Amino acid sequence: MTVVPSDLGDMDPEAFRRDAHRVVDWIADYLAGSDRYPVLSQVKPGAIAAALPSHAPARGEPFDAIFADFERVLIPGITHWNHPGFFAYFAITGSAPGILAEFLSAALNVQAMLWRTSPAATELEEVVLRWLRQLLGLPAAFEGVIYDTASISTLHALAAAREGLAPSVRTHGLARRTDVARMRVYCSDQSHSSIDKAVILLGHGQESLRKIGSDSEFRMRPSLLAAAIAEDRAAGWQPLAVVATVGTTSSTSVDPVPEIAELCRRESIWLHVDAAYAGVAGMVPGYEWILRGAEQADSLVVNPHKWLFTPFDLSVLYCRRMDLLRAAFALTPEYLETVEAAPVRNLMDTGVQLGRRFRALKLWMVLRHFGADGLRARLAEHMRLARLFGEWIDGDASFQRLAPVPFSVVCFRALPHADAAARDPETDTFNERLLAAVNASGEMFISHTRLDGRYALRLAIGNLRTTEVHVARAWDLLRQHAASLRLNR
Amino acid sequence: MTVVPSDLGDMDPEAFRRDAHRVVDWIADYLAGSDRYPVLSQVKPGAIAAALPSHAPARGEPFDAIFADFERVLIPGITHWNHPGFFAYFAITGSAPGILAEFLSAALNVQAMLWRTSPAATELEEVVLRWLRQLLGLPAAFEGVIYDTASISTLHALAAAREGLAPSVRTHGLARRTDVARMRVYCSDQSHSSIDKAVILLGHGQESLRKIGSDSEFRMRPSLLAAAIAEDRAAGWQPLAVVATVGTTSSTSVDPVPEIAELCRRESIWLHVDAAYAGVAGMVPGYEWILRGAEQADSLVVNPHKWLFTPFDLSVLYCRRMDLLRAAFALTPEYLETVEAAPVRNLMDTGVQLGRRFRALKLWMVLRHFGADGLRARLAEHMRLARLFGEWIDGDASFQRLAPVPFSVVCFRALPHADAAARDPETDTFNERLLAAVNASGEMFISHTRLDGRYALRLAIGNLRTTEVHVARAWDLLRQHAASLRLNR
Repeated sequence: MTVVPSDLGDMDPEAFRRDAHRVVDWIADYLAGSDRYPVLSQVKPGAIAAALPSHAPARGEPFDAIFADFERVLIPGITHWNHPGFFAYFAITGSAPGILAEFLSAALNVQAMLWRTSPAATELEEVVLRWLRQLLGLPAAFEGVIYDTASISTLHALAAAREGLAPSVRTHGLARRTDVARMRVYCSDQSHSSIDKAVILLGHGQESLRKIGSDSEFRMRPSLLAAAIAEDRAAGWQPLAVVATVGTTSSTSVDPVPEIAELCRRESIWLHVDAAYAGVAGMVPGYEWILRGAEQADSLVVNPHKWLFTPFDLSVLYCRRMDLLRAAFALTPEYLETVEAAPVRNLMDTGVQLGRRFRALKLWMVLRHFGADGLRARLAEHMRLARLFGEWIDGDASFQRLAPVPFSVVCFRALPHADAAARDPETDTFNERLLAAVNASGEMFISHTRLDGRYALRLAIGNLRTTEVHVARAWDLLRQHAASLRLNR
Repeated sequence: MTVVPSDLGDMDPEAFRRDAHRVVDWIADYLAGSDRYPVLSQVKPGAIAAALPSHAPARGEPFDAIFADFERVLIPGITHWNHPGFFAYFAITGSAPGILAEFLSAALNVQAMLWRTSPAATELEEVVLRWLRQLLGLPAAFEGVIYDTASISTLHALAAAREGLAPSVRTHGLARRTDVARMRVYCSDQSHSSIDKAVILLGHGQESLRKIGSDSEFRMRPSLLAAAIAEDRAAGWQPLAVVATVGTTSSTSVDPVPEIAELCRRESIWLHVDAAYAGVAGMVPGYEWILRGAEQADSLVVNPHKWLFTPFDLSVLYCRRMDLLRAAFALTPEYLETVEAAPVRNLMDTGVQLGRRFRALKLWMVLRHFGADGLRARLAEHMRLARLFGEWIDGDASFQRLAPVPFSVVCFRALPHADAAARDPETDTFNERLLAAVNASGEMFISHTRLDGRYALRLAIGNLRTTEVHVARAWDLLRQHAASLRLNR
């Protein structure tokens, strides 16, 4: 038992015990009834900041006072990602086993930069990423590493690709060099903005990213990709990488990875597969096809924090050439040199971030709590609900579906009147107003995108608290508000 | 109350309640007695992985079984960063209020990319970073943003500097361009490896980082910096940024920021101050000098997860030109466009990471629980303990202090015999053996560095559970093991 003078140590452990039990009851009630709050926060900009003091308190305050402000001031400013009516962006779940793991992880406060700074964190990461790789049917040649976000995973994939293509860049850089060609990265016009941010950060410039046109179902067209590569090579560009997406952010379309992979193989170009959202569906019987071709990729990102019920943040990069990632970044200052009884993996060597949380713990608890079959059943249920909602849209002439529904997201719009044109500013405005109206209800939260020039509403299913009842209620609200807007236009 | 079929939803909330109460008791006991475990994990490489199944379970498992394995398999593989005998690297604290905040944050599972995705997360971040800025005496011109690690904070600072110097790089990149000069970043030979990693990632190459020599107390020598800049300019390099460090990783030395800032002002070079570890000491009366000159910086990083009792991860970047950071990275795809009642800050615009956790909550709870005076008292106590340990070293002829002790870290070595030379491979080896011996005790964990060519032991104080008793015990162990090694050499 450690005794520290109370004015110089941490909170007294018995006070922690009392306060933490109270927090548990609050969270249990929250998880059982998060739908008593409006899903989208209804506060006005600046209201939360205005309700808080302008300076930190000079003296410590009792937890009761802090927790009261958490409920009174902060909760109204929370948009409830763990609410069954959350259908925006990609709906996610902070599941109960994942929450418990994060609680334990915060208490241990492990920083897993080196194997020795917590062997269990390094080795559990290796084990759970093997489990996940097996569930996805990916080859054993893929070594995994956990990062915070897909943005960081993709950034590292492209950095590894660059290390493979032009290893001198690590030392000499890109500027004013005639021995290093300008490099080009390819993705579709539906790809995620993280690829733009990665090429900017890496110093290649947004110009180095060439966006390839997609077909009527928003999938990259391999023939255009082949033509772009040929044209670029002729013009002196060096292809650096192709990013194919399995589950794009707007419509969840799936690029034809097998054809793209074959092209990359022929052209010796690094293939990175962005399966951040949809990759996990590859474990569901009947959906193995979505990762077909990915086994030939050089790297692949999948985010358990998106659709595998793991609290944010936990992104996984699988890479066939982790040696290149290490070659790009490994750099051990004297104060981090260690001598161990056998060779060990030091996770700081595979990234730009030195410090890393013990994130593997939550994925491990999630995988064990739900089990592989349980995860498959839940993913399948979310896809069933999305198909069902899509059928409702298809069955109503005053609505229109705007993309196929391969996974758990439906893109659609309401029509302001029977003869609404395909591309009609009035239809766009009508749907913007519909979005605002249903989101103001507090019962549901959807977001939007633009598909083929048309403003599209997106209903995304991914929270474990969402049932058919909630999806049906969303459909009711959409029809009611659309009808009311039609009357008042 | 949401009811979901148990085989398709989350864990039953009442089961969560029961299991979470059990976890609370475990954590309360842990925080009260983390010293019952060996601080440095004693497991052999591979032992944890070997003790875990090779595949994920097909069926879900009861929490009892998962928690039993957590205790049985994982805990022996944990190096206890929350142990009072943790003196390695920079000692940190996952404090009780911070742990409670992380628990709540995981339950809310907020993703704060946009203001609307949780206004409270965005606005609380603004408020607590204002509080912290005031505590550190930094000017209001500094806008703050929270990232995961100092590596990412510094990366963004350098990206902002580049945007200011050569805005065309965002679009056109660095490669094969004659209109963009090669850029140089300056730091001392004691600076952190994250600066190397940042210039590699940014595409400037390690060559673009020029390390400036330091004086006998490991502080950057401004005269050498001035000479290097002049020489580089003459040779056609464009200075991009100078990184000055307040609390270097090896010896916690403080670069002469006022002189460096004056030089940067004269030369119009971006000044980034790396105060990741020691910056927080600036709030302690008598230590205001350590941030003198920093008020002129363009950016500054300080890590509450290092020495402000905030669970890992939470790094703060203060930047005078946040507009440049936004210019470098802001990029809003249609699906993230929002319309709000008033202008709002969307935190995704200030970084390469789109997703961001609700990290401000833990810093808020930590600042309120301890209060400004409480934080000052704790920081001052850690510095008192370090000075005390330094005095013990100075008072024992068989030990030698190797650097000043400005903060809470002491660098020293034991001497194998009375006439040990200043640079003697035998002395280095002796201290390597001493390090291994005391770390094998399980009662303390220290790390090492190299200073002026000499192998140095580092004792870092920073955990709230550490008292004078623990520091005295570390000193006893060091003397005992040194004596025993001297007998057996």
